[in-house]
Amino acid sequence: MSEVYEARRTRLRDRCAAAGSESALVSRPANVRYLAGGAPPGAVLLLGPPGGDHDLLMCPQDPFGEPRPGGRPAEGLRIAVLPAPDADPAVAAAARAAAARAGSLAVEEHHLSVAQYRAVRSVVPGVRLADLGRAVEQQRVVKDEEEISCLRIAAEITDQALGELLESILVGRTERHLALELERRLVDHGAAGPAFPTSVGAGPNSGSPDHQPTDRRVEEGDFLSVRLGADYGGYRCEIGRTFVIGTSPASWQIDLYELVFAAQRAGREALAPGVACRDVDRAARQVLRAGGHGEGLEARTGHGVGLEIDEDPRLEPAAMGKLDACVPVTVEPGVHLPGRGGVRIDDTLVVRSEADGGPELLTITTKELLAL
Amino acid sequence: MSEVYEARRTRLRDRCAAAGSESALVSRPANVRYLAGGAPPGAVLLLGPPGGDHDLLMCPQDPFGEPRPGGRPAEGLRIAVLPAPDADPAVAAAARAAAARAGSLAVEEHHLSVAQYRAVRSVVPGVRLADLGRAVEQQRVVKDEEEISCLRIAAEITDQALGELLESILVGRTERHLALELERRLVDHGAAGPAFPTSVGAGPNSGSPDHQPTDRRVEEGDFLSVRLGADYGGYRCEIGRTFVIGTSPASWQIDLYELVFAAQRAGREALAPGVACRDVDRAARQVLRAGGHGEGLEARTGHGVGLEIDEDPRLEPAAMGKLDACVPVTVEPGVHLPGRGGVRIDDTLVVRSEADGGPELLTITTKELLAL
Repeated sequence: MSEVYEARRTRLRDRCAAAGSESALVSRPANVRYLAGGAPPGAVLLLGPPGGDHDLLMCPQDPFGEPRPGGRPAEGLRIAVLPAPDADPAVAAAARAAAARAGSLAVEEHHLSVAQYRAVRSVVPGVRLADLGRAVEQQRVVKDEEEISCLRIAAEITDQALGELLESILVGRTERHLALELERRLVDHGAAGPAFPTSVGAGPNSGSPDHQPTDRRVEEGDFLSVRLGADYGGYRCEIGRTFVIGTSPASWQIDLYELVFAAQRAGREALAPGVACRDVDRAARQVLRAGGHGEGLEARTGHGVGLEIDEDPRLEPAAMGKLDACVPVTVEPGVHLPGRGGVRIDDTLVVRSEADGGPELLTITTKELLAL
Repeated sequence: MSEVYEARRTRLRDRCAAAGSESALVSRPANVRYLAGGAPPGAVLLLGPPGGDHDLLMCPQDPFGEPRPGGRPAEGLRIAVLPAPDADPAVAAAARAAAARAGSLAVEEHHLSVAQYRAVRSVVPGVRLADLGRAVEQQRVVKDEEEISCLRIAAEITDQALGELLESILVGRTERHLALELERRLVDHGAAGPAFPTSVGAGPNSGSPDHQPTDRRVEEGDFLSVRLGADYGGYRCEIGRTFVIGTSPASWQIDLYELVFAAQRAGREALAPGVACRDVDRAARQVLRAGGHGEGLEARTGHGVGLEIDEDPRLEPAAMGKLDACVPVTVEPGVHLPGRGGVRIDDTLVVRSEADGGPELLTITTKELLAL
């Protein structure tokens, strides 16, 4: 495995060199983990300089003494722990770069704070500071099979947790309890934790994105929507489903469900390498519009997933860029009718060429309208 | 309640004015919440300028359409939602300040990223940017009775969750399950959520700070240490206890427990207005040293709590400054013997003068060595 991380770092080092930076300081946690294989919170990664002896993971000293969780860094990567608990890893790493006579250092200006930047600059007065920009985020968009297999396991865990919940009695339980139970089941099945706070919305709260669970109890006749995902090996997936409680859904519920289902299918079917991100969004969105729900729609219908739950690319009307093969994304259109509730259907898929069988659905829980 | 937030903002505005800044941009989430009473993630607060019509909470547009959780802002505070989902609230707020003819704007350089800072500067070329520093964090150190009452409720919830766990069978259950159950109980009793990831360590993992729960099962003869806390109304407390599993603790367990208990008591008893933070740390630390555990101790023996679980002040050897009345802190010395386990005892207390009864213990679960 350590060659994977080494190869990622080499690619970034080459990119920095091409942009005129001999060394780079990576501070955004998901980026550090991507390049180092794991890191305690607050760790930063120094790449290069080419003349020096390679890369260094600079870890903060935990004020309470122990290395924190966050994954074990890859073998072969040098690790240094800060001498003092209050020292800033970015500053210490920059000082190492200067000591190794780096002429230039690229930093993540979108992550480093102004105060850290000033402190870095003051310890490396002779080093030219450049902006690394979102180079690592861009490198993270296309996943390798190792990463996709983590996402696949995360999705399996998520499907299991959701499937078990559906076998239990739901009426009378609160959104909050259902959310907690789902999170417990995720961990039971091997997740490191939930990929994001689980959302459960019943009745008027259903179909609302990022609804925070309340003490509202599930009642007969409700729509019930859930959104959850597992973190497995750092990789985060997402599933969203909407159910109806009781034996006979109302006709408005059936109509709305079918509409959102059609929109979500259209979005899924639009996924292919080379397709513009905005076209995937449009495929889903125009179904909802044609169904009379053009107003008040969300700004996006999906997004990339990986070490973070919300990554590039974005599936939205103003998105630039095209999809590549091996990019995992969510497709998650929804309609929420204030006061009544709504429907949201959300899958994680991997973009694949037609020759490879088309989009790979990771979250396989049924999307039929289940009456529970 | 809205007067509380208004008064906090007035105090900060006065402080900025004294430092020569007409307006201020607060971006650190806990600081925004402190001054605005609540805010969706990513919101920033613009204070002043004095000539303009007051303060403004600039909220990001949620890409998925809905206002996110994070507390309702106080009444009387103007709220604006960004026109575009990708716009930066800090930049938009700075533009408003410039439009209101602010001559100077203080920003939180320790929080704002370099990229945001550059973007802010480019939209307000005529405005002088200053550093607000940790002015809001400093203002947050001494709590009002409203805040302390939130902490008191958070501690009650925490004691209840822990008390219930102690009544259940522990042997054979995994650290991970116990941690999840504690978190579920916190929410059952009214917490918004756990104040931080719950730590449960059994056997060799006991007494280790921030140990992340594993699949290690609780066994007869183990030390079992737990650390948990509730978030109530945004305020976070912390309790840590160590138990012994089975009827007869080994003598090394009793000795170690008594030592850590004595250290923790010494720390608690040292808490008083006007006492140097480092002296509280020393009071606890020297007991551990005298007991032969001077090596490998943690860098701190406690810290402030409030809207964040780890705030100023720090109780550590190099800490500057003195305690004030109405400052809530943890006192949490511990000893971890690699391979064997250890003891950690952690309370949240509020510093009070002797006339007010001395330090107020919020987390009241017994600190006797319980054999479970």
